[in-house]
Amino acid sequence: MRQWKEERCDRPEQCAAARTEKVKRLSDLTYGIVGMGLMGGSLGKAVRENVLCVPSCGGRIFGADKSGASLSLAERQHIIDRPFSISETDEMLAQCDVVFVCLYPHDTAEFLISRKNAFKPGSVVTDISGVKAEIFSRLDEIVRSDVDFIPGHPMAGSEKEGFAHSDGSIFRGHNYIVMPLERTKSESLALFKQLISCMGFSRIVETDARTHDHKVAFTSQLCHVIAGALVDSSEDPAVTAFGGGSFEDLTRIAMINAPLWAELFLANRTELLSCIEAFESSLRRLTSYIAGNDRESLEQYLSAVREKRISMGRTEVTA
Amino acid sequence: MRQWKEERCDRPEQCAAARTEKVKRLSDLTYGIVGMGLMGGSLGKAVRENVLCVPSCGGRIFGADKSGASLSLAERQHIIDRPFSISETDEMLAQCDVVFVCLYPHDTAEFLISRKNAFKPGSVVTDISGVKAEIFSRLDEIVRSDVDFIPGHPMAGSEKEGFAHSDGSIFRGHNYIVMPLERTKSESLALFKQLISCMGFSRIVETDARTHDHKVAFTSQLCHVIAGALVDSSEDPAVTAFGGGSFEDLTRIAMINAPLWAELFLANRTELLSCIEAFESSLRRLTSYIAGNDRESLEQYLSAVREKRISMGRTEVTA
Repeated sequence: MRQWKEERCDRPEQCAAARTEKVKRLSDLTYGIVGMGLMGGSLGKAVRENVLCVPSCGGRIFGADKSGASLSLAERQHIIDRPFSISETDEMLAQCDVVFVCLYPHDTAEFLISRKNAFKPGSVVTDISGVKAEIFSRLDEIVRSDVDFIPGHPMAGSEKEGFAHSDGSIFRGHNYIVMPLERTKSESLALFKQLISCMGFSRIVETDARTHDHKVAFTSQLCHVIAGALVDSSEDPAVTAFGGGSFEDLTRIAMINAPLWAELFLANRTELLSCIEAFESSLRRLTSYIAGNDRESLEQYLSAVREKRISMGRTEVTA
Repeated sequence: MRQWKEERCDRPEQCAAARTEKVKRLSDLTYGIVGMGLMGGSLGKAVRENVLCVPSCGGRIFGADKSGASLSLAERQHIIDRPFSISETDEMLAQCDVVFVCLYPHDTAEFLISRKNAFKPGSVVTDISGVKAEIFSRLDEIVRSDVDFIPGHPMAGSEKEGFAHSDGSIFRGHNYIVMPLERTKSESLALFKQLISCMGFSRIVETDARTHDHKVAFTSQLCHVIAGALVDSSEDPAVTAFGGGSFEDLTRIAMINAPLWAELFLANRTELLSCIEAFESSLRRLTSYIAGNDRESLEQYLSAVREKRISMGRTEVTA
């Protein structure tokens, strides 16, 4: 497994530099977003607000979606310059310098393969799938010599769904995991990192697909499994009257997009089951101290957990 | 088990009424805080900022603690008008109209019994213990005919410790659970509810001790157990570089005060073990769908969880 490397972006300076030297380039590009849901919409807004914010810039944002309502709303809000229906998607892709494919994981792989010949030569194409195994197992079908495909995973989201709830500010201070291929051209990678840094992400982590799937099984999927099981185990829907914030913290992400997360859990099944097993083992040890009235071991366990959690630092990095 | 009843406070109106009609009374009282740690300090600040905020009011806040440093800091910050050492506590109690006992659960019971004769006749005495079983089992030793003891539990806190981290605003929008005794005088209860409402709590839930211990085993203690086990099960302290906020949401409360929470877990052991068992059962069912690649059941489970969580509403109630 390849080691991952972390790149902490000092966003204000980077973006200042980008504005003077490089934003001319970023602000002249045409961006395409395939799938204008919560994530696609939020990414589009982040590009509009941070990269194409100067009215005189030559750049454009195009959006493709099966929902005419989402496209209309995105156009009315001046997030996209032109909407494209599904049947017009090839026409859109042919004009885009940077494409974000914001579909479910399996649909993403199918889209990249079926539209392989539609991308503009020299363009940078990325996806946002939460599990990368399928995409990497089908790279031969996806990759084109004159297009730079850079798999990625913006580590931010919302319990809400759809373009209407999209928000360009949800990425501020968050992580973006990128998994460049060995063949990825360095200037394409640099451009992409410059872009996501300008969009608000403050920590770019470069790694490979296996490491990604292994790590997010713990930081993301296991957390969603736990939140779901906790809500399921509640006897009483009025229990929040007795809450102090802990229950709400642990279960915000239980308001989950069921089809998407069912797909993510199953796509990363082996890694996720291993995380659940480790969690259950930790829970059993802690429970045994409670059941055995073993105050000394309980205090030691909780003290060690506190130290470990503090040493882990923050997910969110504010500049 | 007695049904609990919820009282939603429309805080701005209540406090406006209090300021005109009743605040004269609240603002003329002497408040005593026993234990000037994170919770005692925060309660003291909430009284100072919301009840004794007018410089000309006649009310005072007294604080007792074994730590001279905490008392000095509280005095320098004008939170308390006078510090009392442990040996001077009886002298303090004799002057206080309202006393908050902010000690660990077992120490609270011991304090209430050993200082029983020190309280001012006619005063209202409350505690903040997260588990009430011991206190209610020893009521005969605690209760005095001329003092109104109203057990309570402010449902807010922080992962930090000590007076230096106390904050009077942590209670805004939060729940306060009160467990009046059958003998509690209605005017004492009304005064106490008026006070905590002015301090920022927006929902006052009145219940009995058994219901309290049963409910908080789920909303509070189980959540802390899960957060602790989740951190314990992490293989990698650098995992936050791969996080998108979920892991941080679930583990903020893992930065736990180990001796306090070990005591709370053990004091409510039977209820907590029953919650852990129910949670494990829910987790096993969810895991079986993942292991069995059963997408349909998985989606049904997650959809039901989403609906259930939405129906539960918010812990925090903002006016």
